[in-house]
Amino acid sequence: MAQGFAKLPSPPYYVVAFSSLRTEGDNGYGAMAQAMLDLALQQPGCLGAESARDADGFGITNAYFTDEAAILAWKNNTLHLGAQKLGQTRWYEHYELRIAKVERAYSGPEGR
Amino acid sequence: MAQGFAKLPSPPYYVVAFSSLRTEGDNGYGAMAQAMLDLALQQPGCLGAESARDADGFGITNAYFTDEAAILAWKNNTLHLGAQKLGQTRWYEHYELRIAKVERAYSGPEGR
Repeated sequence: MAQGFAKLPSPPYYVVAFSSLRTEGDNGYGAMAQAMLDLALQQPGCLGAESARDADGFGITNAYFTDEAAILAWKNNTLHLGAQKLGQTRWYEHYELRIAKVERAYSGPEGR
Repeated sequence: MAQGFAKLPSPPYYVVAFSSLRTEGDNGYGAMAQAMLDLALQQPGCLGAESARDADGFGITNAYFTDEAAILAWKNNTLHLGAQKLGQTRWYEHYELRIAKVERAYSGPEGR
């Protein structure tokens, strides 16, 4: 589900920073993760997402939204609610979720 | 350099979300990344950091700080400035950095 860099507008916007440790085995996770990413990117107010997971099963997804209303709408999306339930019971040993307002952004390296 | 989850206080605090695509080869990156993480965690106002990089070289580090002054102090740390220079010339194909104020945080799964 690596999509590389999200192309975002200038701040302000919001980030949902989701860190997670996966359980052993796939158990349907890969297909659902891709489906949820595709679905999220279709939601009004979802600006993009970036994701990485290391070989130990620890991963970070930073998903970007225009505002808190868009985050709340995605949180309560019916298909997403089902996936969240499976995440809690099956896919994640542990997760931490932080919601933050992006104030500044930079990119680099300059000149490349 | 996987450290797993950061143990953070209750919001508000700040996150520096650093997404990067590595160049080919290590070129001294691994040792420097670990040294910079260790150094960052010693800085006043640095609350913790989480990091993941996938097999394609795309990674995310979310570093957490008490406030913008602590972020600025870390940005201008002399050893870190040297590492940043090498990052620009040697280690990163591309990076995106976003600075955001964390307003809310959750963890799960509940009951485990």
